Amino acid sequence: MASFLRTTSRIRPLARLNAYRSITTTSRSAANAAAARMPEASSGEQPFFPDEPPAPHIRTAIPGPQSKKAIEELHTIFDTRSLNLLANYQNSYGNYIADLDGNVLLDVYAQIASIPVGYSNPSLLLAATSPEMASSMINRPALGNFPSHDWATILKTGILAVAPKGLDQVFTAQAGSDANELAYKAAFMWKRRQERGGADVDFTAEEISSAMNNKAPGSPELSILSFSSAFHGRLFGSLSTTRSKPIHKLDIPAFDWPQATFPHIKYPLEEHVEENAREEQRCLEETENLIKTFHHPVCAVIVEPIQSEGGDNHASPDFFRGLREITKRTGTLLIVDEVQTGVGATGKFWAHEHWGLTEPPDMVTFSKKAQTAGYYYGNPELRPNKPYRQFNTWMGDPARALLFRAIIREIERLNLVQNTAEVGDYLFAGLEGLSRRYPDEIRNLRGKGQGTFIAWDSPRRDDFLKKAKTVGINIGGSGERAVRLRPMLIFQRHHADILLEATEKLVSS
Amino acid sequence: MASFLRTTSRIRPLARLNAYRSITTTSRSAANAAAARMPEASSGEQPFFPDEPPAPHIRTAIPGPQSKKAIEELHTIFDTRSLNLLANYQNSYGNYIADLDGNVLLDVYAQIASIPVGYSNPSLLLAATSPEMASSMINRPALGNFPSHDWATILKTGILAVAPKGLDQVFTAQAGSDANELAYKAAFMWKRRQERGGADVDFTAEEISSAMNNKAPGSPELSILSFSSAFHGRLFGSLSTTRSKPIHKLDIPAFDWPQATFPHIKYPLEEHVEENAREEQRCLEETENLIKTFHHPVCAVIVEPIQSEGGDNHASPDFFRGLREITKRTGTLLIVDEVQTGVGATGKFWAHEHWGLTEPPDMVTFSKKAQTAGYYYGNPELRPNKPYRQFNTWMGDPARALLFRAIIREIERLNLVQNTAEVGDYLFAGLEGLSRRYPDEIRNLRGKGQGTFIAWDSPRRDDFLKKAKTVGINIGGSGERAVRLRPMLIFQRHHADILLEATEKLVSS
Repeated sequence: MASFLRTTSRIRPLARLNAYRSITTTSRSAANAAAARMPEASSGEQPFFPDEPPAPHIRTAIPGPQSKKAIEELHTIFDTRSLNLLANYQNSYGNYIADLDGNVLLDVYAQIASIPVGYSNPSLLLAATSPEMASSMINRPALGNFPSHDWATILKTGILAVAPKGLDQVFTAQAGSDANELAYKAAFMWKRRQERGGADVDFTAEEISSAMNNKAPGSPELSILSFSSAFHGRLFGSLSTTRSKPIHKLDIPAFDWPQATFPHIKYPLEEHVEENAREEQRCLEETENLIKTFHHPVCAVIVEPIQSEGGDNHASPDFFRGLREITKRTGTLLIVDEVQTGVGATGKFWAHEHWGLTEPPDMVTFSKKAQTAGYYYGNPELRPNKPYRQFNTWMGDPARALLFRAIIREIERLNLVQNTAEVGDYLFAGLEGLSRRYPDEIRNLRGKGQGTFIAWDSPRRDDFLKKAKTVGINIGGSGERAVRLRPMLIFQRHHADILLEATEKLVSS
Repeated sequence: MASFLRTTSRIRPLARLNAYRSITTTSRSAANAAAARMPEASSGEQPFFPDEPPAPHIRTAIPGPQSKKAIEELHTIFDTRSLNLLANYQNSYGNYIADLDGNVLLDVYAQIASIPVGYSNPSLLLAATSPEMASSMINRPALGNFPSHDWATILKTGILAVAPKGLDQVFTAQAGSDANELAYKAAFMWKRRQERGGADVDFTAEEISSAMNNKAPGSPELSILSFSSAFHGRLFGSLSTTRSKPIHKLDIPAFDWPQATFPHIKYPLEEHVEENAREEQRCLEETENLIKTFHHPVCAVIVEPIQSEGGDNHASPDFFRGLREITKRTGTLLIVDEVQTGVGATGKFWAHEHWGLTEPPDMVTFSKKAQTAGYYYGNPELRPNKPYRQFNTWMGDPARALLFRAIIREIERLNLVQNTAEVGDYLFAGLEGLSRRYPDEIRNLRGKGQGTFIAWDSPRRDDFLKKAKTVGINIGGSGERAVRLRPMLIFQRHHADILLEATEKLVSS
């Protein structure tokens, strides 16, 4: 028994989930009680997390003395040069992230846009402490070989309950980067099947032997087309489609795959309608031309609804509808990468719902706020013609699929997609006001009508991000110049007011 | 509150963890009580899981009627063509996996070698229901930016507590495939840094612009060398080093990277000493020659201690020591892929401990039984010269790191590495007896002195695997001909007896 005592005695009991709440144990009944205190859906000012701090609270420089010491210790075993804040998650709650020195910040970065419904969310705590979750954690299956008897139910009541329109199947993964790579693999297999003449045509002896040598025809020289300044992940295949920043790509071998120019449009959109339409048309023509002429045939086009790492670059629904038409016309698959835009942040569950497509994308990839990952698809031909072609040991994670189900239920219970649409409009209006008063500081404000998925360019961006911490805001950047807002779906007007006030303080100083 | 009730009422309470046990709730105290009933380390027949079924129990054909129905339902939304058994994990316990029709099988495949200490292990259940775990599950950090204040402690008391000798740092990942790719990226960055003249030499303008176009010199044409019949994963980079089976590789673009021949040695080893030594020498020479001449310079060599997917192919410690010498001599990194061999299965915590290296590998990758993943390293030059070069959103998973810590403690508490070494010897001796009596059915028996990491070639392998279920054994294959044993670390002599008896039944029929 010694080891159990060791395990439990070392742990600081979740105790009070943070300094502001009354949960004194983590038992399910206590979590239940806390959950019961959360209000039903609210469109106005009733807080979703009633015991949230009323405001940020900054006690020390960040990092403070405690954090500095701990970071030094961590650095000896784990690279901390990208460390932004040493967090104390037991003390983080709702929209607020706490650090080790007792500083509490309003978090509009949310773990690079991946926390959906608040830190220490009581509903998620219930799900995380359920018997079903415990079994999933300790009995992790090789999903392709030994799925659990209730895997269909978990998918249907979770991941597939929010499947994009027209897509009713899923292949699960672990993170956005591998979700994209799995979609690419599906695209390559689909393409070769077309070329080969159908699912029943077998591989040739030459294909089989050349594949083992990484050579064509078995390892074909096919490609995925992506856009300039896109981000699709950092594994070898996904990185070959990522064009965000040199530091992401330098020194890593890449496939010779094509990139088309993503439209450089001007903001505010309503003042540059014709100019932007011409630019988008130009990019669509370039895309179609590349698909038709690139020396390694293009099997699929991948695109983000908003380029969320490479600068928060937008394009109009017309552009994306045009892309759908071109891919259809050229027999190319369209993969929409909703890893960052998905799960409510743009005021729709999936950002591509803003486009009014008449035909769905071929595949939609997801992760981050879903806390799991994968790609949705509908066309049965996107299932490879034989088993074990799209396969790996874990093929996803039922524990995280259960968590996504709990997240979906919380989003529905509190009507959080609508909340995000409304609060986004409110926040955008406030920022528009600030950008009129401080036009040099808040440039190219964008994301109108896209929920809280808002960004602007700053002439001193890195400095802005750093100083934001001194006024209690944790905020991130996108690309070289943009300040990106990625609050959680539980971000409300009173949080927007705090953010607006802090932003004014920063841009006016 | 409706959604909470929905969440919890649907769940079949873990109830009895399975039909054979007395845990009637999943509260921590009940788990604690169950854990208390588990014995301290035992070298003999005292069972680790006292309430395990005494033997397999087969009631129906597999799949049985219930499973068939459920598989049909699952297939409409999730590809089930590689499905092997539809499991009921709530009823699985210790070494035994249960299905939906009430069949209970001795599991010597263990989720493709990834379950370390038994299904529904009470010690893991304690860890999985701890407050620390709950917070980790619901507050998942972007580890590179916002690690938790106790991340250093979690690493030191978990992942790094079992770091291979000479390697004291880790970069965490999510699965074996991405762990290998991250190691490759570290290797490429290291190599270019050498070529560039050190950490302080900056990128050239040409490197920066060419990298954005996936072209050299920014995206260099460098390579990773792997061996014939190796398996290192199925993402685009890792798949380019995988040479196990055509079905893993067909239709997927691959990098033009070299493969050296893995020794084709003869078993039993003691009868072919000189012949095998010559073969290994030949392969070492080929490897060195490829490193020196391949048209895309080789930055690293990756090798499995036992080729665990591509046929359970072994080589001698001499071969691996030779590989270490060659890589040293040629300024090439040596990456040892312990994704499947690591965490005790060969009777040492890491399989490469069998080699008696005087200098450790440069990197060791791990996953599967660790339930998390990453690569260990020691040389500080393997940290890239700038932040954000080796980076992604989650960079691992603290929840799974906590689980690995609990696994490590369970292994130590029950002395499971030694158990595996001893039971492996016992099992191997039994199989040697069978192979003498049935030499045509059990060929090339291998894995002597390698714990339970044992395999043999079967002239009717797929049939053997299938029929094994009818006698209550869940067992897997490796490569084209091998039957591979991958029992858990809690596999004991009395389980070995059941396996031996079943094997005899199958090979004699």
